[in-house]
Amino acid sequence: MDMINYEKQIERWGTLEVSVKGKTEGNPFVDYTVQGVFTGKKEQVTVNGFYDGEGIYKVRFMPSFEDEYTFRIQGSFSEEVYVGEFTAVPAGTGNHGPVYVANTYHFAYADGTPYYSIGTTCYVWELQSDELVKQTLKTLKDSAFNKIRFCIFPKHYDYNLGEPRSYPYEGMPMDSSVLTKENFLEYTGKTEGNHWDFSRFNVEHFRHIEKCILALRDMGIEADIIVMHPYDRWGFSQMTEEQDDLYWKYVLARFSAYRNVWWSLANEYDLFEHKTVKDWERYADLICANDPYNHLRSIHNCRPFYDHNRPWITHCSIQRQDLYKSAEMVNEWREKYKKPVVLDEIAYEGNIQHGWGNITGEELTRRFWEAACRGAYPGHGETYMNKDDILWWSHGGVLHGESHKRFKLLHDIMCETPGIGLMPYENSGWDEVCAVPEESTQQIKPVKDYYLIYFSFMRPSFREYHFDDETKFQLKVIDTWNMTVEDRGIVQGKFKVELPGRQYMAIQLKKV
Amino acid sequence: MDMINYEKQIERWGTLEVSVKGKTEGNPFVDYTVQGVFTGKKEQVTVNGFYDGEGIYKVRFMPSFEDEYTFRIQGSFSEEVYVGEFTAVPAGTGNHGPVYVANTYHFAYADGTPYYSIGTTCYVWELQSDELVKQTLKTLKDSAFNKIRFCIFPKHYDYNLGEPRSYPYEGMPMDSSVLTKENFLEYTGKTEGNHWDFSRFNVEHFRHIEKCILALRDMGIEADIIVMHPYDRWGFSQMTEEQDDLYWKYVLARFSAYRNVWWSLANEYDLFEHKTVKDWERYADLICANDPYNHLRSIHNCRPFYDHNRPWITHCSIQRQDLYKSAEMVNEWREKYKKPVVLDEIAYEGNIQHGWGNITGEELTRRFWEAACRGAYPGHGETYMNKDDILWWSHGGVLHGESHKRFKLLHDIMCETPGIGLMPYENSGWDEVCAVPEESTQQIKPVKDYYLIYFSFMRPSFREYHFDDETKFQLKVIDTWNMTVEDRGIVQGKFKVELPGRQYMAIQLKKV
Repeated sequence: MDMINYEKQIERWGTLEVSVKGKTEGNPFVDYTVQGVFTGKKEQVTVNGFYDGEGIYKVRFMPSFEDEYTFRIQGSFSEEVYVGEFTAVPAGTGNHGPVYVANTYHFAYADGTPYYSIGTTCYVWELQSDELVKQTLKTLKDSAFNKIRFCIFPKHYDYNLGEPRSYPYEGMPMDSSVLTKENFLEYTGKTEGNHWDFSRFNVEHFRHIEKCILALRDMGIEADIIVMHPYDRWGFSQMTEEQDDLYWKYVLARFSAYRNVWWSLANEYDLFEHKTVKDWERYADLICANDPYNHLRSIHNCRPFYDHNRPWITHCSIQRQDLYKSAEMVNEWREKYKKPVVLDEIAYEGNIQHGWGNITGEELTRRFWEAACRGAYPGHGETYMNKDDILWWSHGGVLHGESHKRFKLLHDIMCETPGIGLMPYENSGWDEVCAVPEESTQQIKPVKDYYLIYFSFMRPSFREYHFDDETKFQLKVIDTWNMTVEDRGIVQGKFKVELPGRQYMAIQLKKV
Repeated sequence: MDMINYEKQIERWGTLEVSVKGKTEGNPFVDYTVQGVFTGKKEQVTVNGFYDGEGIYKVRFMPSFEDEYTFRIQGSFSEEVYVGEFTAVPAGTGNHGPVYVANTYHFAYADGTPYYSIGTTCYVWELQSDELVKQTLKTLKDSAFNKIRFCIFPKHYDYNLGEPRSYPYEGMPMDSSVLTKENFLEYTGKTEGNHWDFSRFNVEHFRHIEKCILALRDMGIEADIIVMHPYDRWGFSQMTEEQDDLYWKYVLARFSAYRNVWWSLANEYDLFEHKTVKDWERYADLICANDPYNHLRSIHNCRPFYDHNRPWITHCSIQRQDLYKSAEMVNEWREKYKKPVVLDEIAYEGNIQHGWGNITGEELTRRFWEAACRGAYPGHGETYMNKDDILWWSHGGVLHGESHKRFKLLHDIMCETPGIGLMPYENSGWDEVCAVPEESTQQIKPVKDYYLIYFSFMRPSFREYHFDDETKFQLKVIDTWNMTVEDRGIVQGKFKVELPGRQYMAIQLKKV
């Protein structure tokens, strides 16, 4: 290759990658740095690059505007300054830019399109075989999911005893042939037998993850990247401060310029034995300093929530704390944190032995609708017993459940919201969940433009409404489980809605 | 009749009724009193009698011992003292005496037999036609119910616009032909058009209720009598203090000597516009002063609970306050009140428009098991739409639902509890509901004699346990919905229970 290499034209919110040749002596991951300054009429962005092996240093940049840009790259391995120019052309179909917080409780893409999150979790799908990764991508393509949570580090846990396709560092893992379903919990990040050089990244590991991030991006799926997690037998959860920081900077330099990246600092941060709030806040500082695009940032709990009021946290990434109330707590969390509420774990559909992974498809779908009608964003996972121990929740593959089939309907309905996002309407009946457009008033007058009313597990045979005498509404009756939407025409004044006396019904009222 | 009339022999905990002739001049309900003193070797009981019309005054007594008794009756209408004697013979089959609190959280009959309450609610079943009353009794006979809540006053509410078979007072009700499903809420206890003499009881009304109490008694069903309630168009909820007290004394004099009577001061006490805590406490004083048998006493809420810590309250009669958590709150309530927790309203199976009356049979059955495994007593009701507006919850009749068929199994299992009653075991898994015998310790050691573990809506395909290495348990797997009990033999040490991955499963472990 030449001394410098890059594309001359990319889409707005695409990723420009500039490769330069540099030194290979010593340990390039720690001995040298590389930085780029990208300049257009509306922005000047300084970004750190990273060493990608074989003497190649890379600097990535995501242009936020359609514009002509110039750049200057300089590495500590040389006196030379590399310059170049490129054009950011209009975003192509399906490219709406990164997702940001739009109006306190809701998200929108950078181009203003509302983003209604329908998430799933496959912790280490991308670290499986090519075949399985391909299958997962196909499943995702055919699904309604527009966000997926996954880890950079491999996962060690029940149903997760196998080796990942690659490791993030150079070195050798412990011998996993000693692991059984009975003894795996005895193996932790402290286990002997692992030999890693925490100062030398395995670039193939990261290159592969980037391919996966791009594949997701091209399907319109946000990559909610879990940068740290405690389910570990290799020691990745127990590195030193210095090692952690090196890792964070490397991850930030590699992934920040992908528009579909979200930062999840941790899965179940509270299960790390050796990390304190001070550590998490340090990582947060590193993100804020090293991600010039301000991708979304969250931190996910097992039991106690992290303080989601911290200013760097853009949205609440929640694991439910109560066995019986999950999505039903959304009103409280919205009020407390005044941020978007994303319910990344509200128990998964499945039939494994653990209570977090064995609810019905009906119940998970119900939680999705409860969450949506309370102005939050629900998350899915699937944990069906499988003879090969391939469970969607960790490995991806195919879906065996029933809930996922119902999410497209919910997403379609969410997309009909006037403005951006729904909020829970407190002036509704005590025995229904009623959503109105965000930024409506809580008063009964004026009549809202839109009501989405969900009856959850209740089975009314009819319901009566009277908003006022004048307003006309288009009435639709939605069977959220059987996936039917029945147009009941125009209603006005006092009206009665006949319902089938089944669970999981909703009605939609649109002012006409 | 003679001047005095009574049976010479009754069962222990039966009802002796002594009738004496007295004056009919003036208003015998208020102008005269009658009292009896009943004396055996182990008790001397003074009771107030009542006027039963046609110049007859009655005094009722329930002997708590097998013994020879004498009595003296005196009325204010005469100087004469009536004396007599009778024998209380051993209780017959099915007669275990009244139900009392046995051990803080649980009930037992006076003879020591544990009483595991499986309640239902039919608010005014006894005020319906002879035919319907007969049908209700047959339904009850074929059911597992051993407690029923019902009112003395008729009920005015949605699906309850018809006239009762009789009224408690002499007089005339308002014209009910004006009522519709749309306007009924405009008619309250203040409505004009009612003409009652609140000082003259309609004895036929009470005689009929007594027949019903006896019919229940003979089927082993406790009569949880709701003495006051707010759903009223006749003015019975808005009488004066003096009128209320006259009513209470009359009810107490008539019903106290029936062994299966429980006093529910009110249904939804907090919905009475014109009554204060002072009133409820005054009624409680009247019960304590006029019921010499100390029948169980409770007061039922709509929203806020009455202070169930009040000493006269024998048990909590609870309407759930949260749409999503009902039986799941039992642990908290037990801790707070240290009394038996009876969940008289945790939503009813049905399909009417109201959220309190349209849950599935599955969900109500689930709430029953949750309640039982947390050491409480669940209550049923049924509110299916019906072309004749005959809903079990108010009118009785036949049952249309599915939950009631599952209660016999639950009751059978409850009866297998060693000792009296279950308590929630806190050292169990977070994702199961585990009961152990009341008065066990909460420590892991010693191993308990009995574990009843319920998986609720969760669907584990297996669960693993290890209590200790020595103890042997008889293991049974219970499908609470499909009503099967599978004996899995003896288990010991670490063992795995294979489960079908369906909802509503339980396992029972009995130390052998």
